[in-house]
Amino acid sequence: MELLKNVISFSEAKRTLLTHLQPLERIERLRLSNAVHRVLARDIVAELHVPPFDRAAMDGYAVRSVDTEGAKPLEPVVLKKTGIVHAGEYPKISITPGTCVQIATGAVMPENSDAVVMIESTECNDEQVSIYSSVRKGENVTRAGEDIKKGSVVLKKGELLTPGKVGALAALGLEYVEVYALPEVALIPTGNEITKPGMKLEPGKIYDVNTYTLSALVSSAGALPFVYEITGDDEQAIEHVLGNALKHDIVVFTGGSSVGERDVLVNVLRKNGEVLYHGIAVKPGKPTLCAIVSGKVVLGMPGYPTSCLTNAYALLLPAIAKLMHVDFVIPEVRAKMGRRVQSTIGRLQFLPVKMDGEIALPAFKESGAITSMAHADGYIEIAENVDVVEKGEEVVVKLFWIARKTS
Amino acid sequence: MELLKNVISFSEAKRTLLTHLQPLERIERLRLSNAVHRVLARDIVAELHVPPFDRAAMDGYAVRSVDTEGAKPLEPVVLKKTGIVHAGEYPKISITPGTCVQIATGAVMPENSDAVVMIESTECNDEQVSIYSSVRKGENVTRAGEDIKKGSVVLKKGELLTPGKVGALAALGLEYVEVYALPEVALIPTGNEITKPGMKLEPGKIYDVNTYTLSALVSSAGALPFVYEITGDDEQAIEHVLGNALKHDIVVFTGGSSVGERDVLVNVLRKNGEVLYHGIAVKPGKPTLCAIVSGKVVLGMPGYPTSCLTNAYALLLPAIAKLMHVDFVIPEVRAKMGRRVQSTIGRLQFLPVKMDGEIALPAFKESGAITSMAHADGYIEIAENVDVVEKGEEVVVKLFWIARKTS
Repeated sequence: MELLKNVISFSEAKRTLLTHLQPLERIERLRLSNAVHRVLARDIVAELHVPPFDRAAMDGYAVRSVDTEGAKPLEPVVLKKTGIVHAGEYPKISITPGTCVQIATGAVMPENSDAVVMIESTECNDEQVSIYSSVRKGENVTRAGEDIKKGSVVLKKGELLTPGKVGALAALGLEYVEVYALPEVALIPTGNEITKPGMKLEPGKIYDVNTYTLSALVSSAGALPFVYEITGDDEQAIEHVLGNALKHDIVVFTGGSSVGERDVLVNVLRKNGEVLYHGIAVKPGKPTLCAIVSGKVVLGMPGYPTSCLTNAYALLLPAIAKLMHVDFVIPEVRAKMGRRVQSTIGRLQFLPVKMDGEIALPAFKESGAITSMAHADGYIEIAENVDVVEKGEEVVVKLFWIARKTS
Repeated sequence: MELLKNVISFSEAKRTLLTHLQPLERIERLRLSNAVHRVLARDIVAELHVPPFDRAAMDGYAVRSVDTEGAKPLEPVVLKKTGIVHAGEYPKISITPGTCVQIATGAVMPENSDAVVMIESTECNDEQVSIYSSVRKGENVTRAGEDIKKGSVVLKKGELLTPGKVGALAALGLEYVEVYALPEVALIPTGNEITKPGMKLEPGKIYDVNTYTLSALVSSAGALPFVYEITGDDEQAIEHVLGNALKHDIVVFTGGSSVGERDVLVNVLRKNGEVLYHGIAVKPGKPTLCAIVSGKVVLGMPGYPTSCLTNAYALLLPAIAKLMHVDFVIPEVRAKMGRRVQSTIGRLQFLPVKMDGEIALPAFKESGAITSMAHADGYIEIAENVDVVEKGEEVVVKLFWIARKTS
């Protein structure tokens, strides 16, 4: 029976895990309308100018700027209106000296015109347009390619598609876009004592919690959870499900809260691959296991719900982020500790807290409790070299809501 | 032709919009595995204790605590081991004076036992277990209902289901959960000049950008975009699509960048409902329209991509949040302004910026440019009473990544 005496530090555990993972190179072709928050797998080179043509930036009259020279409020220049161009039309009229064409914002500039006099600086009687203000060449005109030049690199491989970037791809007329595939996370509940929610609970059994919290976390990170059926604590069953699950990008076992159960998993992993570590100097979440099997990272999470979920926030999320080519932005707030909390030198502590205004109140009950996490708004980290956080001390709370940004 | 002379302030525009929206009361029943980030529509009352039974919190020996009195490292108490209980089993053995049962973490405490001696404080030879440390009644035991009491309210209506809260519902054995429906946002592109990405671009036309940026924003907020086909700038067509779109929770028209086009939409809205405002003192995004038709909010967004998207961040997101029973947490960073920026007194300005380390560089080109937003990391707000932001001045940048929290 192993008692997890050889634990490693949390930072080493995280570093070791991340070293064994590489950003996914698999590519998917998606409709642009489904691509928000995905990561570009190719540089995007513009195949057209944006805007595609010189266009009016204001409602008004398209003119030859030289014809407006000297126009003033009391000395207007009068031009003959020879037509009108709406947005979306291609103008057939050309501007000749002394003439102008009424034009809508966004419409194509007619041939020979080089500026727009805004409607507010004009007056129109029949076909006679009085221009009360002169315009420079190019005034109130957006030139073709001014926003995006044909042939330029608009967005680069690795950029996360925010709504604004999706818009740039739309402006280029792209219907599809190539992005990196999302990480597939296999979640395998183990333990003879656990029962799937919705089923009748037999005496001595408890409902599966960890598959649900981890699956929710994986989804909210934007990755894809693949939940396996509950597997009993025997080596053959675990070996079988492991073989199936290795097709995914990362494999996570949950459960096995007792030392004996953990031994079953560690034996299977030793037999099929290499165990990188088994035990982290962190509270809660010490009995966490990391192995490499057939080139894939396999994590064994602690069976206790709070331990499992805090370690998933601390270890599984950075792993997913790396596979996904992103960083997660975990919103943080500064708070004052609501009461004195003790910790242990040499061991990192994740303490779930509930926010009460600017006060952070410890929400931790025990590793086995699910309500520690259910009623918490976030958690604080108490470093390895800190043994006490005093009441009123300032702490940084990492909140349980995730956003993403380009890494 | 209306020139939007009667503009209202941004804060009034936002307040007016939100006053006319109520959190959705529609309820959906979802599988728990699909419920992360959704909002509970009912209080959750526990129908069982969690844990459901008294259980061992450690691997060790279940004992009658009285039998361990006086046990010390050099004076162990010796008990007779009468069996073993694994997690998931229901123990048939009862503890009689002088006996103990080996027990795994999470296993049911046998009848008459009231404490667990941890394995590290024992030594076992055949059936003789030496106990080197006494235990108090209840030590290393988690009592039935200690985490969640049967009959108690575990989570309340209106709570956003974080992974931890999903876990609490799983612990109660719930397979389904009732949550509020997601807001449906109708997005209607209008304009004779716009073409759907993927189609050939005829002369004088441009690709639709706004439907794509807004749809991406709506999706990333967790709401449901319903994108309509491009509608030309005529009253009959707009009236027809409006009639269809009113089945959704909020209707958003995009396009109509010229004054004439805006008139078409405003006429249709006046005829069918009440226009609340048409013009906001904000840059960019002045020509924004808000109306009520058949009790539904209808927004007319400016046609220019940057104007449309900044106003969507500033107005549409809070509207969606209210419909959704949540607040969006928009991550903010402090930065120093990279160059002097002028603004106009009396008008709020949204300025897209690109982050370069701790420096915020203005990314704004012109309202018609999409790259302003595509290359920006976020935006700053320059208040109505500020006419200049100096180079080096500290600003708060709202980043373009969204997270959610319970409102």
